[in-house]
Amino acid sequence: MISEQTFKIIRDGTITTPKGFKACGLHCGIKRSKRYDIGSIVCEVPAEAAAVYTLNKIQAAPLGITKNSLQKEGKLQAIVVNSGNANACTGKQGEIDALHMRAETAKVLELPEYYVAVSSTGVIGECLPMDKILDGIRRLPSNMSNEGGRDFGQSILTTDLTEKSVCVEVEINGKPVYISGAAKGSGMIHPNMATMLGFITTDANIQSTQLQSLLNEVTDLSFNMITVDGDTSTNDTVMVMASGLAYNDSLHQNHPDWFVFKAAFQYVSEVLAKEIARDGEGATKLVEVEVVGAETDEDARKAVKTIIGSSLVKSAIFGADANWGRIIAAVGRAGIPINPDTIDIRLGEITMMEQSTPVPFDELQAEFYLKKAAEIHIHVNLNIGNSRAKGWGCDLTYEYVRINASYRT
Amino acid sequence: MISEQTFKIIRDGTITTPKGFKACGLHCGIKRSKRYDIGSIVCEVPAEAAAVYTLNKIQAAPLGITKNSLQKEGKLQAIVVNSGNANACTGKQGEIDALHMRAETAKVLELPEYYVAVSSTGVIGECLPMDKILDGIRRLPSNMSNEGGRDFGQSILTTDLTEKSVCVEVEINGKPVYISGAAKGSGMIHPNMATMLGFITTDANIQSTQLQSLLNEVTDLSFNMITVDGDTSTNDTVMVMASGLAYNDSLHQNHPDWFVFKAAFQYVSEVLAKEIARDGEGATKLVEVEVVGAETDEDARKAVKTIIGSSLVKSAIFGADANWGRIIAAVGRAGIPINPDTIDIRLGEITMMEQSTPVPFDELQAEFYLKKAAEIHIHVNLNIGNSRAKGWGCDLTYEYVRINASYRT
Repeated sequence: MISEQTFKIIRDGTITTPKGFKACGLHCGIKRSKRYDIGSIVCEVPAEAAAVYTLNKIQAAPLGITKNSLQKEGKLQAIVVNSGNANACTGKQGEIDALHMRAETAKVLELPEYYVAVSSTGVIGECLPMDKILDGIRRLPSNMSNEGGRDFGQSILTTDLTEKSVCVEVEINGKPVYISGAAKGSGMIHPNMATMLGFITTDANIQSTQLQSLLNEVTDLSFNMITVDGDTSTNDTVMVMASGLAYNDSLHQNHPDWFVFKAAFQYVSEVLAKEIARDGEGATKLVEVEVVGAETDEDARKAVKTIIGSSLVKSAIFGADANWGRIIAAVGRAGIPINPDTIDIRLGEITMMEQSTPVPFDELQAEFYLKKAAEIHIHVNLNIGNSRAKGWGCDLTYEYVRINASYRT
Repeated sequence: MISEQTFKIIRDGTITTPKGFKACGLHCGIKRSKRYDIGSIVCEVPAEAAAVYTLNKIQAAPLGITKNSLQKEGKLQAIVVNSGNANACTGKQGEIDALHMRAETAKVLELPEYYVAVSSTGVIGECLPMDKILDGIRRLPSNMSNEGGRDFGQSILTTDLTEKSVCVEVEINGKPVYISGAAKGSGMIHPNMATMLGFITTDANIQSTQLQSLLNEVTDLSFNMITVDGDTSTNDTVMVMASGLAYNDSLHQNHPDWFVFKAAFQYVSEVLAKEIARDGEGATKLVEVEVVGAETDEDARKAVKTIIGSSLVKSAIFGADANWGRIIAAVGRAGIPINPDTIDIRLGEITMMEQSTPVPFDELQAEFYLKKAAEIHIHVNLNIGNSRAKGWGCDLTYEYVRINASYRT
């Protein structure tokens, strides 16, 4: 239930729009093409920071190093990211390399190592080309600028077709506060490559503990509610840096403007999450699934994820087939309490099922909707409770199979 | 761990090979083509019976009727099955129609209704064409014969490309005992159609309670270990009928030949399950995943299902890409205890990873294996326990998307 009235969307804003942030992106040679493959965000002061990581038990080396940095003071002043190689499943050498990336970045930016976070995305199981990466890191300072936001956004992409960023302005204690984000999705053209990365900057004054709990709460409603193919990467990470340079009174749950800030923060996360789903490999459509009338939020989330993760539902949408039978079948196997006789299903504005009974509808109208709408909305009411959840995914296409069946070599 | 030494495979056996069974299949007009769409198995005596059903909370009407019949005495003397229409999500009318199918079948076969089981597979959400079905049911008796096994096998198919049946002979108390099975898989060419049905007959003397616990145990190791696309149908059912006409001493867990019988029964279930996976929509390959060294059987099963259900793993196999990164990533998100540093992965005989560290392998050899082998074997050792599990699936292909994106109309 995000109302956009409480904040302003800054169309040309980037992660360097909030006060105190600079960024850059450049090509150091990890990617064969000339595309940017290393980037960095720096803050002129140690920023209050927070991060969430993949739930996959196989985690890439950089995640451990970043956790280690955040443990120290809950602050970050620089993030260094490379794309083209995930430094995952690389054993002890992977840890050494991630530590080396952090040490070199701290050195060239003259920061303590524990203020530096490291992130990687790309191929699994290959060691980093450290010579190229170190060369890239040494060129970061001279490239760092207030206009570097877009370059950074480019430098984290792998096979994404679009750069993903968003910026909003919100008023806290009568002062303008900016929240910006940049993200990359999971593209799989180069197999083994699958990472969702999100970087959020803000000049809000807020402590890392508050920032962390806000990030946890919002991530469950945004980044954790997207599914491209149900596979969870070894590198997924979302990081936030808050410079505090907006000089608002420190934000916490009892701050009068807390919900205004939270709504803006959630909007930023949700936009990035939806952009990732929209740009899922092979996707031609963004699919939004909303489940209401569930007993608990957790149940509603499970139902949303089961529907949006169903290969049958995804293929039907690709085929513009108003196949409600697959939607209710997905609800039935979601492993949550339901009443098999009280389910309503709507596709866009078209009612397909009421109280678990099929409702005659205009097939052509439904087909037209599925073919023409850029965003497909599936709405399910379980009618047994008051909890709801929303999630996003994409259709399953020939292109998805082509991309993921293609050889690494 | 099935040894085929303990039983004999009867190549030309069918569900009518066990003593006491007749069957038939015929065309009553549910399918537009002239293919068989209604069939039946009858036993000359009330057979001890057992059944397992889909875990989907949205269950088709026939399942409730069959449960109702079995509740009475745990015996069945006839099973009537139609294909082309699943009688699922059809509300009250669906129940009335399923009851009508049972009543008419009982009448023409001169049996009490509670000895009759009903099963349907096909389109969800459309009511049965009862006139055609009743006409078909009335023609069952005159078509019933000891040679009707293959016709029955044909009558339960929807979009399956192959008929699925198996028959074995095992010696109990020195007497020959036959166990046969027929099954259909989930084809989705006509959307909303997705049912796994299995019918097992035996002339073994065994009580329904013993039969039910055996079926439960074996189903978890066979039918419940196959995944085509992770979607669970509303109609899945496996039924067993035991005529007892082999006159062996009643089988139970302390019977000297119990494990011989169990091995044969499991073999029958496993063959049918594998045939269903091999014939998964669009599949070009059968994929067998074995996970060993898990802490519990349940953990091992979860890992197997996560790997075999991964769209990324499935696409990679279709593309003959030895993409072990996707396999370990699937293990990591299976939601089971693992040690991230002790995982071994083998593809066929080729070692890809040892103690979670990549092992250099011959890409061409791996590609050749993935291209040429009809059955792909993925072997994962978690090295943290002694539990193991095996499961079966298929690759994800363009054909799968084409089939499932095709219009219903």
